[in-house]
Amino acid sequence: MLLSELATRLNLTLTGEDRDITGVNTLADAGPQEVAFLANPKYRDQLAATRAAAVILGPDDASDAVTGLVCDNPYLAFARAVQLFAVPQGSFTGQSERSFIHPEADVHSSATIGPNVFVGAGAQIGPDTTLFPGCYVGEESRVGTGCTLYPNVVLMAGTGIGDRVVLHAGVVLGSDGFGFAQSRAGMEKFPQIGRVIVEDDVEIGANTTIDRAALGETRIGRGTKIDNLVQLGHNVQVGKNSIIVAQVGVAGSTVIGDRVILAGQVGVAGHLSIGDGCRVGAKSGIGKTLPPNTDVSGIPAIPHGTYLRAATTIPKLPDMARRIKQLEKELEKLQSLMSDSFSKENKE
Amino acid sequence: MLLSELATRLNLTLTGEDRDITGVNTLADAGPQEVAFLANPKYRDQLAATRAAAVILGPDDASDAVTGLVCDNPYLAFARAVQLFAVPQGSFTGQSERSFIHPEADVHSSATIGPNVFVGAGAQIGPDTTLFPGCYVGEESRVGTGCTLYPNVVLMAGTGIGDRVVLHAGVVLGSDGFGFAQSRAGMEKFPQIGRVIVEDDVEIGANTTIDRAALGETRIGRGTKIDNLVQLGHNVQVGKNSIIVAQVGVAGSTVIGDRVILAGQVGVAGHLSIGDGCRVGAKSGIGKTLPPNTDVSGIPAIPHGTYLRAATTIPKLPDMARRIKQLEKELEKLQSLMSDSFSKENKE
Amino acid sequence: MLLSELATRLNLTLTGEDRDITGVNTLADAGPQEVAFLANPKYRDQLAATRAAAVILGPDDASDAVTGLVCDNPYLAFARAVQLFAVPQGSFTGQSERSFIHPEADVHSSATIGPNVFVGAGAQIGPDTTLFPGCYVGEESRVGTGCTLYPNVVLMAGTGIGDRVVLHAGVVLGSDGFGFAQSRAGMEKFPQIGRVIVEDDVEIGANTTIDRAALGETRIGRGTKIDNLVQLGHNVQVGKNSIIVAQVGVAGSTVIGDRVILAGQVGVAGHLSIGDGCRVGAKSGIGKTLPPNTDVSGIPAIPHGTYLRAATTIPKLPDMARRIKQLEKELEKLQSLMSDSFSKENKE
Repeated sequence: MLLSELATRLNLTLTGEDRDITGVNTLADAGPQEVAFLANPKYRDQLAATRAAAVILGPDDASDAVTGLVCDNPYLAFARAVQLFAVPQGSFTGQSERSFIHPEADVHSSATIGPNVFVGAGAQIGPDTTLFPGCYVGEESRVGTGCTLYPNVVLMAGTGIGDRVVLHAGVVLGSDGFGFAQSRAGMEKFPQIGRVIVEDDVEIGANTTIDRAALGETRIGRGTKIDNLVQLGHNVQVGKNSIIVAQVGVAGSTVIGDRVILAGQVGVAGHLSIGDGCRVGAKSGIGKTLPPNTDVSGIPAIPHGTYLRAATTIPKLPDMARRIKQLEKELEKLQSLMSDSFSKENKE
Repeated sequence: MLLSELATRLNLTLTGEDRDITGVNTLADAGPQEVAFLANPKYRDQLAATRAAAVILGPDDASDAVTGLVCDNPYLAFARAVQLFAVPQGSFTGQSERSFIHPEADVHSSATIGPNVFVGAGAQIGPDTTLFPGCYVGEESRVGTGCTLYPNVVLMAGTGIGDRVVLHAGVVLGSDGFGFAQSRAGMEKFPQIGRVIVEDDVEIGANTTIDRAALGETRIGRGTKIDNLVQLGHNVQVGKNSIIVAQVGVAGSTVIGDRVILAGQVGVAGHLSIGDGCRVGAKSGIGKTLPPNTDVSGIPAIPHGTYLRAATTIPKLPDMARRIKQLEKELEKLQSLMSDSFSKENKE
Repeated sequence: MLLSELATRLNLTLTGEDRDITGVNTLADAGPQEVAFLANPKYRDQLAATRAAAVILGPDDASDAVTGLVCDNPYLAFARAVQLFAVPQGSFTGQSERSFIHPEADVHSSATIGPNVFVGAGAQIGPDTTLFPGCYVGEESRVGTGCTLYPNVVLMAGTGIGDRVVLHAGVVLGSDGFGFAQSRAGMEKFPQIGRVIVEDDVEIGANTTIDRAALGETRIGRGTKIDNLVQLGHNVQVGKNSIIVAQVGVAGSTVIGDRVILAGQVGVAGHLSIGDGCRVGAKSGIGKTLPPNTDVSGIPAIPHGTYLRAATTIPKLPDMARRIKQLEKELEKLQSLMSDSFSKENKE
C-alpha cells in the first residue's frame, strides 16, 4: 500500500515523499517499509532515529518527522492503520466434521465451526461468526453476526450474544450465580434460571466469568470492553461503552452505568448503583452507591483527591502517633507548670 | 401445578384463591401464572402492583398480598419453589462416541458423557453423574453419584469427588501446587504428588482453581460453596458449610474451619488457621491465625468494628496531620510565652 | 530403593541403618518404608514420633533422628527425592486420531498428542513434548522440547514456548491485549498483532492469562515461575527466575526484572519498571517504578518496614483523632487561661 493511499483512507495529511509500505510497527522497531506513530510525548526522542517509512503524528510534532502522516488523533489513526494490516487468526474453514452440532441447532452456512465444538439444541449461530475449537454453545443460546469465540469459550444455555462480539479464550458466560438459601440442614441451592445477554460490539477477555441471573437477566451493554479474569455476579447490569479492567469483581445485582471505568482488581459489592461516567481507581473497594461522574479510590473508596492526600499521610502515621504522645506530655507539663504558677500567685 | 399443591409440597399456608401456575419470577416481572416472593423489606413497595398469581412471604406481610403463600423463611421456600420448576441444562444423553473413555475406566451405565470428554485409566464415574463436553477426568480420579461437571472442567489424576457435587465450567482441580526449592542453579520443582478431595454437596464456581497437595491432600469439606475464580493452594483444608466468595485466594497449608465466610477478593496467607464461624470482610488480607467466630476486615485484617471506625478516619488523615502541626506551633508559642513570663516573674 | 542408594544419588550422609524404601511423605504421615524431611523448625516436635524409615534434615537436627539423611539444604534434597519417586500423569501415548493436526503443522514423532487437541497450520511441537486433551496450538506457534501442556491450554497464533516449559490446565497465552482507541463513535479496537514468548524452564499455573503484545513481544524470562489465575497484560516483560504468586495482575508494558517476587494478589500499574531482586508484599498496589532490590508493601506500596509500622497504627486512628481533638481543647483552655493571666498581670 502507498503512503498516499493510507493517507486517503484514514484522512491523514502526508508530508514528505510517497512510498510503498507493508506494515506497521513502533518507532523503535519499524523498518523502512513500515509506518510508526507518535501519540505519547514520552517517545518524541525516538522520532529522530526511527527508520519508519512515515510516522502518524499530531500537527505539533509534524515538523520533526522526515515523512509525517498528520492528524488530530494519532493513536486512533494508527489503530485504524493496524486494522488495515491485521490478519485474523484461525487456520480452519467451513464447519468441522469433528464438531457436534445438534440437529435442532441453526448454524448459518457462512459461520465457521472449528473442531471439537459443541452446539446444543435450539442454539443459533449467525452469519460470518467463527467458533474456535473447544467452544461450547448451550441450548437455546443465540450468537449474532460477525462474532468471534476463541478456543474453549463456554456459553451456558440461553445466553444471548449480539453482533460483532469478541469472546477470548476460556470465557464462561451463563454459569450459575452464587445463590444459596440457609436452611437448618445447611445451604440449599437457589436454582439460577435467568440468563446472560451481551449486546453488540462487546469484547470480553480471556477466562472472564459472567454468571447468569437468578431470575431475569445479567446484561452487558453495547460497546463495553471487559478485560481478562473479571468476575460479574448474577443480575449485574453493565451499561454502554464502559471499561472493566482485569481481575475486577462485581457482586450480584449491581447496576453499572454507561462510560464507567473500573480499573484493575476493583471490587464492587452487590445491590449498588455506579452512575454513568464514574471512574474507580485500581484495587478500590466500592461499598456504596456512586452518583454519576464520581471519581473514587481506596478501600473503602473515597473521593479520588481525598484518597491521594490520605495515601501520602499513611507512611507518616507512626510519626504522627509519636507526635501526639509528645504533645500530650508537653501539654501536661505546661498545665502543671501553669497550675503551680497559679497556686503560687494565689498564695502571694 | 396448583397453588394448593405448591403449598402442600413446601409447607406453606395459602391465603386466597387457588389457581394454576407455570413458573416463578420476581415481584416486578411475574405474570399472572407465576409465583413471586418477598424476602427483602426493600421490595415491599412492589407488592401492591405485582401481577403474580401468589406471593411467598412472611406472616407480617401476609395481609398485604392478594394471594399469599405464608411461611417463616420466604427466601428458602421460594428457592425450593424454583427447584420445582428448574430444568437442568444439557441436550445430550447417553455416552458420546466422540468422547475418549479409557478401557480401564469405570463409567456407570447411568452416567451421561457429552462429546469431547476424556476419562483416563482407572477413573470412576458414578451413577447419574453428567460430564459436559470438554471435561477431562485424569487417571484414578473418582467422581461420585449425581454430580454435574459443566463444560471444560479438568480433574487432574487422583482427584476424589463425592456425591451431588457441582463443578462449573472451566474449574481445574488437582493442578500442581506452587512449590519450588531454591538451589544454586535456580528454582527446582518440588513435585506435587498429593491430591484434591472434594466432599459431598460441594459447589465450585467457574474457572476456580484448586491445587493438589504437595504430599497428602487438599480437602474441601461437605456442603461448602465456592464461587468463581477462587484460588486455593496446595494442602489447604476447608471445613464444612463454609462460603468462599469470588476471587478469594488462600495460600498453601492454611486450614479453614466450618461455617467460615470469606467475602470477595479476600487473601489468606499460608500455614494459618481460620477458626469455625469466622467471617472475613471483602478484600481483606489475613496474615495471622484467627480464633473461632472472629469477624475481621482490612489489610492487614483487624476486628471488624475497629476496621469500620478506622476506615472513617482515613479521609481525615491530611487534616489530622495539619492539626498536629498546628498544635505543635501553638504549644511552642505557649511554651515560650510561659518561659518569658517566668523569667519576667523571676526578675521581678 | 535403598537409603544408601538415595544418599549417594542426592549427596546425603546416612546416619543409621540401611533399609529399603518405596516413597516419600511428611513426618506425620510417613510409614516405615517412606522417607520424610525436616526443613521448618516448627515441625521438630514431630521428629520423635515419626514412623519414617529416615528423615532428610540439617546437621543441627541430625542427632535427634533415629535414621538421618544429613545435608545443608534439606528442603532441596527432599524435593529431589520426591522427583525420584514422582510418576508423571497422562494415560495416553502416541498421537491421538481424535486430534486435529493441520497438514502444515510440524509435530515431532516423539511428541504425545492426547485426544481433542488442535494444532494449527505452521505450528511446531518439539520432541518429548506432551499435549494433554483439549489443548489448542494456534498457527505458527512453536513449542520446544520436553514441554507439558496440561488439559485445555490455549496458545493463540504465533506464541513461542521454549524447552521444559510446564503450562497447567486452562492457561491462555496470546489472547489479545486490552487496547482500544477512543473515537467519537465509541471505542475502536487497536488490533493486537504482537505475540507471547515464554523462555526455557518456565512454569505457569492453572487458568493464568498472558496477553500478546500490541506490537512486538510479551516475554517471560527463563526459569520464572507463575502461579494460578495471574494476569499479565500486553508487552509485559518478566526477567529470569522471578516468582509471581497467584492472582497477581500486571498492566501493559511494565518491565519486571530478574529474581523479583510478587506475592499473591499484587497489582502493578502499566509502563513501570520493577528492578531486579525487588520483593512486593501480598495484596500490594504498585503505582511507581521500583529500583532494584526494593522491598515494598501496601496500597499504594511504600517501603516494607514503613508499611509494617503504619499498619500497626491504623487500628489506633480513631483514638488518635480523639486525642487530637482533646489536645486542641486543652490547649485552648490553657491559652485562654494564659491570656487571662496576662491581662490580669497587665492590669496589676
